[in-house]
Amino acid sequence: MLRLKRIGISTSRENVAFLSRACTSYRAAAFEGQEKVEVVANGHRLVATLNLVNDPAILPPDCLGLSEQAFARFGLAEGTAVRLDHPHPPKSREGLHAKIAGRELDETCFRAIIEDIAHHRYGKVEVAAFLVACGSFMTTAETLALTRAMADAGETLHWPGTPLVVDKHCIGGIPGNRTSMIVVPIVAAHGLPMPKTSSRAITSPAGTADTMEVLANVEIDLPTMRAIVAEAGGCLVWGGHVKLSPADDVLISVERPLNIDTREQMVASILSKKKAAGSTHLVIDMPVGPSAKVRTADDAARLRKLFEYVGDAIGLSLRVTISDGTQPVGRGIGPVLEARDVMAVLENRADAPADLRERSLALAGRILEFDPALRGGAGLARARALLDSGAALAKMQQIMALQGPPPRLARLGGLSREIVADQDGRVLAIDCYRMARIARLAGAPFDPGAGIDLLKKVGDPVQAGEPLYRIHAEREVEFRFACGLAAEASGYAVNGNGKGQN
Amino acid sequence: MLRLKRIGISTSRENVAFLSRACTSYRAAAFEGQEKVEVVANGHRLVATLNLVNDPAILPPDCLGLSEQAFARFGLAEGTAVRLDHPHPPKSREGLHAKIAGRELDETCFRAIIEDIAHHRYGKVEVAAFLVACGSFMTTAETLALTRAMADAGETLHWPGTPLVVDKHCIGGIPGNRTSMIVVPIVAAHGLPMPKTSSRAITSPAGTADTMEVLANVEIDLPTMRAIVAEAGGCLVWGGHVKLSPADDVLISVERPLNIDTREQMVASILSKKKAAGSTHLVIDMPVGPSAKVRTADDAARLRKLFEYVGDAIGLSLRVTISDGTQPVGRGIGPVLEARDVMAVLENRADAPADLRERSLALAGRILEFDPALRGGAGLARARALLDSGAALAKMQQIMALQGPPPRLARLGGLSREIVADQDGRVLAIDCYRMARIARLAGAPFDPGAGIDLLKKVGDPVQAGEPLYRIHAEREVEFRFACGLAAEASGYAVNGNGKGQN
Repeated sequence: MLRLKRIGISTSRENVAFLSRACTSYRAAAFEGQEKVEVVANGHRLVATLNLVNDPAILPPDCLGLSEQAFARFGLAEGTAVRLDHPHPPKSREGLHAKIAGRELDETCFRAIIEDIAHHRYGKVEVAAFLVACGSFMTTAETLALTRAMADAGETLHWPGTPLVVDKHCIGGIPGNRTSMIVVPIVAAHGLPMPKTSSRAITSPAGTADTMEVLANVEIDLPTMRAIVAEAGGCLVWGGHVKLSPADDVLISVERPLNIDTREQMVASILSKKKAAGSTHLVIDMPVGPSAKVRTADDAARLRKLFEYVGDAIGLSLRVTISDGTQPVGRGIGPVLEARDVMAVLENRADAPADLRERSLALAGRILEFDPALRGGAGLARARALLDSGAALAKMQQIMALQGPPPRLARLGGLSREIVADQDGRVLAIDCYRMARIARLAGAPFDPGAGIDLLKKVGDPVQAGEPLYRIHAEREVEFRFACGLAAEASGYAVNGNGKGQN
Repeated sequence: MLRLKRIGISTSRENVAFLSRACTSYRAAAFEGQEKVEVVANGHRLVATLNLVNDPAILPPDCLGLSEQAFARFGLAEGTAVRLDHPHPPKSREGLHAKIAGRELDETCFRAIIEDIAHHRYGKVEVAAFLVACGSFMTTAETLALTRAMADAGETLHWPGTPLVVDKHCIGGIPGNRTSMIVVPIVAAHGLPMPKTSSRAITSPAGTADTMEVLANVEIDLPTMRAIVAEAGGCLVWGGHVKLSPADDVLISVERPLNIDTREQMVASILSKKKAAGSTHLVIDMPVGPSAKVRTADDAARLRKLFEYVGDAIGLSLRVTISDGTQPVGRGIGPVLEARDVMAVLENRADAPADLRERSLALAGRILEFDPALRGGAGLARARALLDSGAALAKMQQIMALQGPPPRLARLGGLSREIVADQDGRVLAIDCYRMARIARLAGAPFDPGAGIDLLKKVGDPVQAGEPLYRIHAEREVEFRFACGLAAEASGYAVNGNGKGQN
């Protein structure tokens, strides 16, 4: 018997168990080849990846350590007597191998795999194998089965008495594309319920939840969220309090650092979350551009078909809009700068970024046309009227008031540097991926005031020495990371003599 | 700046860096989304997966910890000032993504990927993604390119003045198939040089190195190995002292626990190691059976073609022999028991397992026919003569004497239990995978005396209550693991009334 010990090491989402090499009850090396153990006590079982410990200060020989997340999941007190077992392979293992071998799986197999993933019975390596195997071969029927399995694996929300629950989702990759914070107030002002839950950034410089948190509290529990939606018709909260499609969080945690993005996984990820959130009508914003997630019109068409097929099959009324993904939207990248742009649009200020305004109106117009009472084609005009009249701003202020003040005052980062053009010419292109990366290195979203302020957009004339954008940061080390990356390549292509700056 | 600290945690082959959440120089969370950091000092750079630490007893806030293997690889003393950087993506990243996306790679791409893997610049997740992507689509030209890249990535051996360097390799999966220890003395007794390096078991109950270690020292450095081969014409040593095809070790460390085995990877793995070891002629033993690695004659034929294609292209004279893979070979499974069987064959004892003897003779005969001086078809008779005359035994004794005595005396495990038939009938099949697993759980190869002694083989008549095999173990906890697994399903199918035991 071993005594359970909590080890103060955070191993991301993977369960890690620690066993001393000097352990006398179990031979650590015998578990090493297979890499996994099953920790057992009082009916609790937990499968974990095994690390061996040589330092009694970290773990005494008669103890079994669990990483922070694994300890929390196991749910027993330190000192509890535990024993080790060789792990029983997860039920879905055969299905996983069939998928790796290139075979088509049925819905039962996907349910078993997703259930094991949601319960953290897969390690990172197995999750990666599943993702790559799905990416290499997956039928539309399998994408549908996967979506259903993911939607059913966690909590599901229902909105009784509300036949129409609308939502929007952008497939991402375009910095500054913060349309949700403009669309929600417009749609709610019209009277369509839009209970928006958003994520925080994982590898990007800002998620909608991070940006909204500059203006208001976003950590709202479910009863409060229901009350806010009942009163205001909409909300903009962080989705982390509701465990919608938990397998998706695990898949994303492996997919993002690896930077693999498959169409099928994207569709299953987005639609399973929306279905579980109780949405009935959904508009998907799909930016297309050379540095966006979707790069060509052909890709966009195929992805749209897949969204439509799965959406129809799971009972979601869904429309896909293709948008310009050739450069960042608005001027700010990072929570504080993006919140500034959003408020400028809602306040109808003269200096508000026109592209953010027009994209938001187009999306809101599309959503408003889900309203049977609205005349076909009248959505855009109605959206514009609600924005121009100040109704959307008033709705946003109501939502902010109901959600409460932000947890801390966020200010623009005090360290700043301008990156300048090295030749005269015209801005030909801006690399979305690179701008996001620079803003992230500058500290966004952890410092909400870190990020990038774009001073030139595609088509703008520039002179050599004129600033293209400004980097903001709060901390010296991160300021250097960001400036270093920008110095390697600015992310801007300027055509003067035909050769682009980069 | 952070001070370098060695953390007494062994994380298998993956580099892991530890950073305190309370660190003031770097914001731990900013690195978390991407999962990786680059540790930099005095021109040394190391890419590592990041774990965050909440316990100052494990890691003070101003330190950067490295796991044992990562610390050794980084090669600097504790206390050295280090800084962190965002990792530059490995050069081969684009190639990896192209492979994941299902594209064909050229040799340059494979060389870059294998170079990064051999230098531990990939995490487990990336290695898994590479393996699964290769498994889902890979041309024969790609398999060849991968083999070349792997062979060239590490050390290579040359045997000057020896135009013919022979070797054999079994693709594995059949417990007890310890033919190398019989083939080497026969072939060396004939006069063909056979410098055999073998591996220790990773997930199996014994590798050839583990079994040979019951009889002699196997941890031999390269100069000593050369001297032994010069004197005796052969050796049976552990390959770990020579860094042949180091990327293969990394690939195997991810592949085995995940239990994915692709044909292409197997060919590249085996042939790259043989090529790097300086072999010129190779016989491959390919057992085919329902619980072996190769399950059907069709699979065997396709795999044989792939071995021949790649072998020819890299200048290895190669012959593939298909053998019976329907049950374990010999009677013992586990180092001590297998060494017993091997010596019984070499000593021409009446109770020597006939199947192990015949398989070894067939393989040795094939190898002997590489000798231009030997008449075509005369290999088997020559092998039999060398074994029957005691020449092979004498050669084995010479090799053992040259390698030196074993590091410790290995005895059969004192705990034992017989697993009995539950009905009268005849043994229909023995599950190789399950027998290996039971022997492994019993403690093999860590306790060389742990394992399984098979008392019945396929075709033998049995009566209800008669023992099928005996489990041996040294430690109580492992004895229970093995007996528990055997109680769930014995691994034997006995057909009495038409229904098999399992």
